[in-house]
Amino acid sequence: MTKNIKVNAAILIIGNEILSGRTQDTNTSTIATWLNSIGVKVSEVRVVPDEEKIIVDTLNLLRKNYDYVFTTGGIGPTHDDITAQSVSKAFDRKYEIHKEAYKILESYYKPGEFNEGRQKMVWMPKDAELILNPTSGAPGFNVENVFCLPGVPSILKSMLGGLKNKIVGGQPILSHTISLRTVESEIASSLTKVQDKNKEVEIGSYPFFHAGKLGVSIVLRSQNQSKIDLCNSQILEFIKEKKIEIVDR
Amino acid sequence: MTKNIKVNAAILIIGNEILSGRTQDTNTSTIATWLNSIGVKVSEVRVVPDEEKIIVDTLNLLRKNYDYVFTTGGIGPTHDDITAQSVSKAFDRKYEIHKEAYKILESYYKPGEFNEGRQKMVWMPKDAELILNPTSGAPGFNVENVFCLPGVPSILKSMLGGLKNKIVGGQPILSHTISLRTVESEIASSLTKVQDKNKEVEIGSYPFFHAGKLGVSIVLRSQNQSKIDLCNSQILEFIKEKKIEIVDR
Repeated sequence: MTKNIKVNAAILIIGNEILSGRTQDTNTSTIATWLNSIGVKVSEVRVVPDEEKIIVDTLNLLRKNYDYVFTTGGIGPTHDDITAQSVSKAFDRKYEIHKEAYKILESYYKPGEFNEGRQKMVWMPKDAELILNPTSGAPGFNVENVFCLPGVPSILKSMLGGLKNKIVGGQPILSHTISLRTVESEIASSLTKVQDKNKEVEIGSYPFFHAGKLGVSIVLRSQNQSKIDLCNSQILEFIKEKKIEIVDR
Repeated sequence: MTKNIKVNAAILIIGNEILSGRTQDTNTSTIATWLNSIGVKVSEVRVVPDEEKIIVDTLNLLRKNYDYVFTTGGIGPTHDDITAQSVSKAFDRKYEIHKEAYKILESYYKPGEFNEGRQKMVWMPKDAELILNPTSGAPGFNVENVFCLPGVPSILKSMLGGLKNKIVGGQPILSHTISLRTVESEIASSLTKVQDKNKEVEIGSYPFFHAGKLGVSIVLRSQNQSKIDLCNSQILEFIKEKKIEIVDR
């Protein structure tokens, strides 16, 4: 019965393009949603530039503080892709050609196309384990609890399925959403009372604008369905009293 | 001539909804793009949960390490909005009613509508300076170099303009993009050579898929236009040699 253990993770987004605002990160949401479904809670996200010392220091902090660390970006063929060498330094492992990755890419490309740039993608920390890439060949890798994924969202998505056997989660994090035709200030004090009575349920309140109308989504999150249900019934009670309309969203 | 000074910032995204994957953060990109335009470079982004101790500790670290810190989220009326009280703790200031904010909201709402929930939004660190909100009334605030903005993207966007006089940037960060019909591995080694010769230009390489075709965008970033131009001409040289097509993107 290890099912009640809480398992957490950090995400480390590596890339100047996110910090400059040029690229909108979408990988955090993809990874976090997937991790939730297998019982891993994301506790922290950091975005750092393509600078080796910063990546190494941040990795060494995060991998000690969390059960798992997921990095995105920096594993391509160009000069600004320095994740693999940074992970090697963080773990004090040799940065070398990974034989299995070499074989995979050698057979993935047509004869003559496995050029110098592409060969850079098989340099990894010694004894890294591969994360297979069904979309574009070049594998990601993990060293102990650090999992390195690419930055391109469609490729990253296609690789998560292959990680399932490597990640041991706790009980899945369940959630229930109630969307209301109201504004936050109308329900704030009632909601505070419910939160005070239900410490083990995380209650979030999120205003939305949809089809020209204001509303609020209340999100209940817990590993325990019966605690969510109890909390839900207390919320439905004050909603009824206040004659607030429940809406689909 | 303070124009060449480098000015940096960190963004602190506060909110369980980002960590759970439920909500896709878009504020990083909005703030970073705007800061670039006034000569401030975002050096780090962190996403943390709605937990006071974590917010206080992270704020105290970031505000010492960077010229400016921008927080998003947690300044609404509900129990999970704890940014203002956390900033008060971080700066060891009293958490109290801000008289000017009170007046603004009192006249913003119809008589009788400025209820308990809404009144929570005028509680701020003592002597906080207001950041006006042209969209929905409730102001953000800053204490020294920490600027607290709301999480709702449309409201946040509308408040940035009002910040201009409060932020002193350096020379704007300029960028130039060249999009190519190629793959990264074809240009990786040539690009490395250009980067080695142009240390003061940040060269990024970003693969894209557009209208079913693969391409790569090369992004040159620097505070110095002539350095970008030099770098650009060296890149155009190897592109011509390799007979790579330049495309619009």
